[in-house]
Amino acid sequence: MKPGPRSRPAEPGICVSGSSGAGSAFPAFLPSGAGVEPGSRPGTVAAVLPAGGCGERMGVRTPKQFCRVLERPLISYTLQALERVCWIKDIVVAVTAENMEAMRSIIQRYRHKRISLAEAGATRHRSIFNGLKALAEDQPDVVIIHDAVRPFVEEDILLRVVTAAKEHGAAGAIRPLVSTVISPSADGCLEHSLDRAKHRASEMPQAFLFDVIYKAYQQCSDYDFEFGTECLQLALKYSHTKAKLVEGPPDLWKVTYKRDLLAARSVIKEKISQEICVVMNTKDEESAGHLLKEVLKKELNCVNVTSTVLDHTGGNVQKFPTDQCYSFICVNVVSSEFQETQKFLSTLEESGLPLLYPVVVVLVHCCDLTLAPLASKMESLMWIRSLAEDMKKRNVLLSGLLLNYSKDEQKLQESFQQGASIIAALVKERSSALAGQLLLA
Amino acid sequence: MKPGPRSRPAEPGICVSGSSGAGSAFPAFLPSGAGVEPGSRPGTVAAVLPAGGCGERMGVRTPKQFCRVLERPLISYTLQALERVCWIKDIVVAVTAENMEAMRSIIQRYRHKRISLAEAGATRHRSIFNGLKALAEDQPDVVIIHDAVRPFVEEDILLRVVTAAKEHGAAGAIRPLVSTVISPSADGCLEHSLDRAKHRASEMPQAFLFDVIYKAYQQCSDYDFEFGTECLQLALKYSHTKAKLVEGPPDLWKVTYKRDLLAARSVIKEKISQEICVVMNTKDEESAGHLLKEVLKKELNCVNVTSTVLDHTGGNVQKFPTDQCYSFICVNVVSSEFQETQKFLSTLEESGLPLLYPVVVVLVHCCDLTLAPLASKMESLMWIRSLAEDMKKRNVLLSGLLLNYSKDEQKLQESFQQGASIIAALVKERSSALAGQLLLA
Repeated sequence: MKPGPRSRPAEPGICVSGSSGAGSAFPAFLPSGAGVEPGSRPGTVAAVLPAGGCGERMGVRTPKQFCRVLERPLISYTLQALERVCWIKDIVVAVTAENMEAMRSIIQRYRHKRISLAEAGATRHRSIFNGLKALAEDQPDVVIIHDAVRPFVEEDILLRVVTAAKEHGAAGAIRPLVSTVISPSADGCLEHSLDRAKHRASEMPQAFLFDVIYKAYQQCSDYDFEFGTECLQLALKYSHTKAKLVEGPPDLWKVTYKRDLLAARSVIKEKISQEICVVMNTKDEESAGHLLKEVLKKELNCVNVTSTVLDHTGGNVQKFPTDQCYSFICVNVVSSEFQETQKFLSTLEESGLPLLYPVVVVLVHCCDLTLAPLASKMESLMWIRSLAEDMKKRNVLLSGLLLNYSKDEQKLQESFQQGASIIAALVKERSSALAGQLLLA
Repeated sequence: MKPGPRSRPAEPGICVSGSSGAGSAFPAFLPSGAGVEPGSRPGTVAAVLPAGGCGERMGVRTPKQFCRVLERPLISYTLQALERVCWIKDIVVAVTAENMEAMRSIIQRYRHKRISLAEAGATRHRSIFNGLKALAEDQPDVVIIHDAVRPFVEEDILLRVVTAAKEHGAAGAIRPLVSTVISPSADGCLEHSLDRAKHRASEMPQAFLFDVIYKAYQQCSDYDFEFGTECLQLALKYSHTKAKLVEGPPDLWKVTYKRDLLAARSVIKEKISQEICVVMNTKDEESAGHLLKEVLKKELNCVNVTSTVLDHTGGNVQKFPTDQCYSFICVNVVSSEFQETQKFLSTLEESGLPLLYPVVVVLVHCCDLTLAPLASKMESLMWIRSLAEDMKKRNVLLSGLLLNYSKDEQKLQESFQQGASIIAALVKERSSALAGQLLLA
């Protein structure tokens, strides 16, 4: 392995998970992605993630890949997106020496798998080269290069660039241009504007046969390392490989400015609010839980509302959604006896769900307020406050909702509808400051 | 006036405000923007806003300029940004015939001033030309062209492009490229990639001497009208005017995808949450209101916390912020007597503040919960619920906050801090579903 000029030595890579064998067998499972021949196999695939940037465009001190979105660093979302793809065997992250420790603790805290670390270089290209060097011993057939700050990459586009790279030697995602691109003259005036139809924005991910990109980097000049922006161009220049361009989806966008971080937060909040599970203590279709489920379905028509029945021990639930669902509406399951709730919350914690995202739990208590005085009912539910305080530390946002279960049909309907709106707001906003409150519908 | 080939006839323009004289006198006031010589005057200035797009990239049916952000159409924010600039004398919006009525009601509802309407053409360039034709009779010296979907344009960049246009005949805002731009070959492979350092993204606003851009459009071919993307290029081609390029701020970005709409919502929410006014009924510096103000200042260190004292009639406030402030924390001002609160809310409504943004009002009641039982205290505040229901229709989001005014110093501190977090969440999230709730700190 010949190091590139002036590049820092690459750290050999610390394997966190035991399954990081970059030279291991062909993937057993390959999904049939759009535009990919059935049965086509990308071979052994690894990924390199340059994450040494300093985020100066964001206008904040923290490098953007380490900025927190719902309390979790952005790079953790990107790692999650890559490790979800089982045929990516090794993911090398290039980070600066000063962020190495922080990166290690992110990997540990969020239990990321198949990650190795390499030291970032002074420029993006040097970081990528260091990442490739870390893979050089157990060469994968194909290497994906992706950005740490593009967290919404899906398996489909990864498969399409990898498949195209196998055929063409190199491939990269592209998008239509949003703005016209112009060329300024030396005095800051318009020289000419480019035809938008004839140009594209080059995005990430890109993929390469390992040899193609590794050899290209080995031949890079200092100028390439300092000022080059495009891996595809290096593959063309030094390995004479014309990259295949693959049209990617709009969510490949790069988190660049502060507004992108705000957009990422909104996108993530929306994604994890797409499923709500109503937990109840009876299969009775006339029960308050079932009624609420139907109202939620109608009110939140883009959200998948499922339900599950809690058994007597409180802890075990019939069908506990283990993935994707981060919002639980417990209807009349929990009496004021506190212990049942605690058992349910323990099961939730053990599932590992609150590890990656804040989980919303709403404890709904139905009662006819003409029969029981509201004040005493509220007083009897005050235990939710202290429990919520405790759960907040574990990333579970607990609230109480008192629902007026009136005998008057119209009042009942209004109460359920208001309840559904409140639940929707709690689920969508995931505000920790409002956890522990007792709300009224 | 010679109409362009195949262009639809321009509607002469319906003046909504009486002050739309495009040919009126020089602006009396001109701010000294960055990079602009003191005393430089842009002359009479008008603006054209093409708003005939159909928003296909957004993946929603509503054209993006009419998509709602905090319940208000996006284009209304852009109009607000332009009409805030007093030296822009006339704003011509080009909308399709089918959206003309909707546009009129937006102008009326949000009380926009100095707006005229023209009919949009089949393409962006035809819409702009129609807008210019509507200005042709009372020609302004300079015309700004801006996008309806770039709501965050500030006076500074408007002044800079107008000033540059006066000197150079044409000027436009530019930004560094975020992605590398590439040129694909016919078979969908990389032909070459452009040097990022030598190119820029052309953004809006742009500005032109009226003659320069009007003559350019009069000479446009059908091809230009159909496929041209860049007004600066037309000025170069037909009026031989080399546009001055002006580096713009990042918030000029164009709302293109759904994520941009989410980002816009977050940016707007953040902007209107930058100021909180604490309303109290005493100047006493030891009062709960003053204490809360100090805690809010400390907890929300990027937010400007001001205060005002309500007089006995409840309605008049000593210093009612009439602009910018959309969040009011009323501390102990309102007894359970309801009327005082109503007077305050009427004053708020009369100020016109809830017209443009949802206004958050938190009624804070301090009481020592060891002395008064919580339940009865909450019961006595239930009137907030029905009042809130009513205020919601008027875009005022009312909540109650019961603050434990304990004699125990530590408990008091905790209560105030939790109260500040709750207030921050209510202010930041502006959730109408949570209005009317009685929260506890």
